[in-house]
Amino acid sequence: MHPKILEYLSREVGKHDKSYGSDASTQKLHLLLADIFETEVAVFPVTTGTAANALALAAITPRCSAIACHKGAHIFTDECAAPGFFCDSSPLIPIEGKNGKIGLDSLQSICELFSENDPQCSPVKTLSITQATEHGTIYSLAELEALSNFANANDIRLHMDGARFANALVALGCSPAEMTWKRGIDVLSLGATKNGTFCAEAILFFDQELAQGFVRHLKRSGHLLSKQRFMSEQLLALLNDGLWLETANKANQTAQTIAKAISEIPNAKVWGVTEANIVLASLPIAIAMTLEKQGVWFRCGPMSPLGMCECRFVTSFETTETEVAALSAVVASLGRSSPKEISHEISRNYRWLTIS
Amino acid sequence: MHPKILEYLSREVGKHDKSYGSDASTQKLHLLLADIFETEVAVFPVTTGTAANALALAAITPRCSAIACHKGAHIFTDECAAPGFFCDSSPLIPIEGKNGKIGLDSLQSICELFSENDPQCSPVKTLSITQATEHGTIYSLAELEALSNFANANDIRLHMDGARFANALVALGCSPAEMTWKRGIDVLSLGATKNGTFCAEAILFFDQELAQGFVRHLKRSGHLLSKQRFMSEQLLALLNDGLWLETANKANQTAQTIAKAISEIPNAKVWGVTEANIVLASLPIAIAMTLEKQGVWFRCGPMSPLGMCECRFVTSFETTETEVAALSAVVASLGRSSPKEISHEISRNYRWLTIS
Amino acid sequence: MHPKILEYLSREVGKHDKSYGSDASTQKLHLLLADIFETEVAVFPVTTGTAANALALAAITPRCSAIACHKGAHIFTDECAAPGFFCDSSPLIPIEGKNGKIGLDSLQSICELFSENDPQCSPVKTLSITQATEHGTIYSLAELEALSNFANANDIRLHMDGARFANALVALGCSPAEMTWKRGIDVLSLGATKNGTFCAEAILFFDQELAQGFVRHLKRSGHLLSKQRFMSEQLLALLNDGLWLETANKANQTAQTIAKAISEIPNAKVWGVTEANIVLASLPIAIAMTLEKQGVWFRCGPMSPLGMCECRFVTSFETTETEVAALSAVVASLGRSSPKEISHEISRNYRWLTIS
Amino acid sequence: MHPKILEYLSREVGKHDKSYGSDASTQKLHLLLADIFETEVAVFPVTTGTAANALALAAITPRCSAIACHKGAHIFTDECAAPGFFCDSSPLIPIEGKNGKIGLDSLQSICELFSENDPQCSPVKTLSITQATEHGTIYSLAELEALSNFANANDIRLHMDGARFANALVALGCSPAEMTWKRGIDVLSLGATKNGTFCAEAILFFDQELAQGFVRHLKRSGHLLSKQRFMSEQLLALLNDGLWLETANKANQTAQTIAKAISEIPNAKVWGVTEANIVLASLPIAIAMTLEKQGVWFRCGPMSPLGMCECRFVTSFETTETEVAALSAVVASLGRSSPKEISHEISRNYRWLTIS
Repeated sequence: MHPKILEYLSREVGKHDKSYGSDASTQKLHLLLADIFETEVAVFPVTTGTAANALALAAITPRCSAIACHKGAHIFTDECAAPGFFCDSSPLIPIEGKNGKIGLDSLQSICELFSENDPQCSPVKTLSITQATEHGTIYSLAELEALSNFANANDIRLHMDGARFANALVALGCSPAEMTWKRGIDVLSLGATKNGTFCAEAILFFDQELAQGFVRHLKRSGHLLSKQRFMSEQLLALLNDGLWLETANKANQTAQTIAKAISEIPNAKVWGVTEANIVLASLPIAIAMTLEKQGVWFRCGPMSPLGMCECRFVTSFETTETEVAALSAVVASLGRSSPKEISHEISRNYRWLTIS
Repeated sequence: MHPKILEYLSREVGKHDKSYGSDASTQKLHLLLADIFETEVAVFPVTTGTAANALALAAITPRCSAIACHKGAHIFTDECAAPGFFCDSSPLIPIEGKNGKIGLDSLQSICELFSENDPQCSPVKTLSITQATEHGTIYSLAELEALSNFANANDIRLHMDGARFANALVALGCSPAEMTWKRGIDVLSLGATKNGTFCAEAILFFDQELAQGFVRHLKRSGHLLSKQRFMSEQLLALLNDGLWLETANKANQTAQTIAKAISEIPNAKVWGVTEANIVLASLPIAIAMTLEKQGVWFRCGPMSPLGMCECRFVTSFETTETEVAALSAVVASLGRSSPKEISHEISRNYRWLTIS
Repeated sequence: MHPKILEYLSREVGKHDKSYGSDASTQKLHLLLADIFETEVAVFPVTTGTAANALALAAITPRCSAIACHKGAHIFTDECAAPGFFCDSSPLIPIEGKNGKIGLDSLQSICELFSENDPQCSPVKTLSITQATEHGTIYSLAELEALSNFANANDIRLHMDGARFANALVALGCSPAEMTWKRGIDVLSLGATKNGTFCAEAILFFDQELAQGFVRHLKRSGHLLSKQRFMSEQLLALLNDGLWLETANKANQTAQTIAKAISEIPNAKVWGVTEANIVLASLPIAIAMTLEKQGVWFRCGPMSPLGMCECRFVTSFETTETEVAALSAVVASLGRSSPKEISHEISRNYRWLTIS
Repeated sequence: MHPKILEYLSREVGKHDKSYGSDASTQKLHLLLADIFETEVAVFPVTTGTAANALALAAITPRCSAIACHKGAHIFTDECAAPGFFCDSSPLIPIEGKNGKIGLDSLQSICELFSENDPQCSPVKTLSITQATEHGTIYSLAELEALSNFANANDIRLHMDGARFANALVALGCSPAEMTWKRGIDVLSLGATKNGTFCAEAILFFDQELAQGFVRHLKRSGHLLSKQRFMSEQLLALLNDGLWLETANKANQTAQTIAKAISEIPNAKVWGVTEANIVLASLPIAIAMTLEKQGVWFRCGPMSPLGMCECRFVTSFETTETEVAALSAVVASLGRSSPKEISHEISRNYRWLTIS
């Protein structure tokens, strides 16, 4: 939790206000987000990213339809089937695509397979895009445009999982509007927990109609908090004065530093480009273990027969200099040797596990 | 939010610990609750009472079965059908009973109607008891025993909605164990938000077996918080040193004062006995409006043809002396006149609405 | 199964036609029902009454809303919570009312309790009316009108469970249109199995809009039959040349005969008026057992302390003269003695069980 | 509908028996299947293959878990998400694999991704195997053994979608027991509609425990028929005297004839081996259109840029000599020319569409 969050909470304790979102803090949040996104928005704070995603999807997914997402999307692999639970058992259909991004051709063939014209299947009516992706890559505005055009032409609604929204934003250097409703996004899960709040994410509807009756989705899933203003205050703390961009930027920078340090480790390989706050890399097992002993926190997949393991470093505003320094120290101690090219691709069904 | 809660949160900010409940705070909470309840318990903090109830019910309700509760229970009337949503569409069957308490005969006939022997119906396999009830009344230990015996004899699991658990506890003067697992309760929703926390309730399983795999219910409904330790800290703040009993006791005492003041208002009538932190009363409309102008917060039902309205006063640790004094002032200004007996019963389908 | 059904099935065997409802038989059924109901209808044959009811309700019940029905309605007590299962866990709210009919005042107070204005509850958006009722009584056109007006004024959709639709129709002597869409019914479960088919009921939408995408509800619940034409043929067999009215009329007449015979049994009492094909009666246990030995089929509730048992006789086109004669024989053998008036009401939570 | 089915139905009309499966026909069916499968079984007739699959899966899939199946499985692509609907929103996870068969390595990596050890995901606890597959291929007993061993080692239950069970059985020449419970299958959807019945499939449990309370799953989904005996009679008609094997064998033989005829068409290519009653082939568009004009029924996918289209011929006991002859006629008229090898694989996201 960022100290600023606590500061905002402290100011509110002892005050009285209306419950369930009719309070002044939530009203302020509403105005601030309309300002940030340069358009009228409907805003609903919730406590977790899973709730934000599943609830947002429930609002835009019609009954007896399907939701498409990248096969590595958090909603598919890491949210315990929450979308199906919230969306009246609508299925998630995984899409292929490189670097954690949805492949347009794969999307197209899935949408032909699960098409409105066939009464025997659940047609794809919703597409969920993760920005930045689980691989730490970022859809360009042009790529978002292409997905949006396809969705539009096929009567498909768009959700953006913005667990790392701010990281993508500062990396692209565009406006929040350009990355969302100007690219056809209907509803956004605006991540904040990874960026400093204790328990506050926001669901933003750019199409007000979609938010009609949405509060009942919150209520029946236990996500309507009586003391909602304390959630709104957390978000205000983060969004006011650009703190969210500052913390995201710091995390991105740290990721760059780490990527650079890793690329200097003999035999290690950084996968793809490091665009946001995630670094994917293959490390010799011995080095991975050394790093871990030095106090570097990261997640590590199963070891390969070649003595390598796939590692995922996620940085945040809290990633300490010590952790980054530990990496550099390892590099220095090892010296520089000619890295052996590692050719195996990151496994399609990759899952990161904590070393322990 | 009670100031103590903030104090505990403050101490944690800046510290690092494991996520998703593997932290030291949650461990401490676990031990503290085992101590308070004099038995081993499985503990899961959640953010709302609705989540606590619906998730607890999901854990103990088998597929294709039904849940019985009082027809005035919060889970039936005020949680937007959350239990059905969490329990694979298991229906809630409302039970009749005076003073907000489940009538044993009504329960019995419902359980005959929705019986295991009939494959055409969903048999009642779960009973939810609210302690203290929505009417502010409290089940005696003997009454709990009777319900428990019935449940036991009919292979029915018991849930306690303890939104006002502490209020009932201090009113009965018994131990937490006596009011729960010693009376056959399988799982408890331990309320805390109404008693001081910002967003922390606890689900307690007395039968460890029932908690098997329960974390997935949390996850798929978006109720597994990464920074769970901040929820555990809120609960620790409330439970340590008996703060929860203190705040509950204060609320109960204030309710008594209010009940007494109302009973002195001409033509007003307090319904039933005031046992916890709720006062139900019929007030002449003019007086209700006067109270409201004086800053007394309460909820008020539709007006009767006799010029009366049904009011519901809920007290908390935060109910101010000013509010109570306002009531007394009204009484003093009115003098004492012979109250006309009001004979109509509180409507079966009563719903409290905020005057505004 | 009525012999006429088999005759129609036989004619179809060996023929080839399109599957999943694109066949000529289904087209004929569509035209015939439009003719019978004097309006354009969307028709979907299904195999059971439970499927017809639950699917019809799914089509008209919005997410996060509730369905009201009589507390004795088949959908509440005898369909294993199918409506909640099909309607995205929407709850069924039981309504009080005499003689198996929904009480307008009870409905009104439930709709205030579960109202659109309260975001904490699931508002009632659907009302299910059983015609004829489970008690064998029949709503008059005026009573249907009153329910319809209330529904209309409160933005509530109307479903009619017509498991005994034909029995009600011949008893009222009105047209199908007068009993349905002219009284505001949006969707009808048209019963046929109890009236002669092997496995064919029909769901009829009077508002075509509501049937949009409905075929997917059928498919995802396993109710879209490839050889649908054999279901349509069953319905055609029953509906052509008024066979359905003939069989229903015969069942109603037999019920009258039975009611009269029972009323002559000393100490026996027929409850309410016998309007359709159901007779509810209190019988001395000895007589009930005698009837059973004589081969009369009926269902019997738990015995009362007074030596009586509540019996439910359901007649059909197949009820034999022998069964009716057995009743008369019992009457004749007993002679006529002064019947003792039985004063206890039919239990609120009554359930009929087969004697065995 | 096979004439034999009608014969059995006719014999039953006019008879009276108990409803909901307590009848003599269902009892006979039970005994016959126990005999055929050489073990005690629990049997539940249902009206459609989708119902059979979804209900079978509901019985063996625990809450908050996932179901794995081939990406081309009917339950994934053609049943409108019925499994998720019946299984409390449990997700279907598609598995890669050649020729319509589950690839063991792909299954393994999915089971690592969706593993019991990770509380953030729904672990795979059920595997559904289609025999014969949607491609018309057949798992050998050894292949079934391998899948079963894997499932066993990973605490995964096995379902077999036996829509073409008889076709596989006669092709393998093994016993029903060898292809099911002796290979670890827990529950079987035994297809019959494609093999002659009007509306009768059977769900068979080899582990009696799993059928506990299963009748309520039938009831709440509208699949418990009062006149169940007419379904049982359909199945008896098919299973008695080996009619089901006879009709399946005829269909398989016809498929062989068709495959041979197609292989002689210039430029045409039959995919894989034709093992059951399905032929997959690439045909020059002109020829496909000629066949269609001659009255050959088949389904055809989108045309390729090379002027070919992917066709799927499904044979049944009813496939006429005329249809087969039409194919041969085309072959004869075309003469024999050197076929150009077609190298493109059948598209992963292939869907068959009716030419019309």
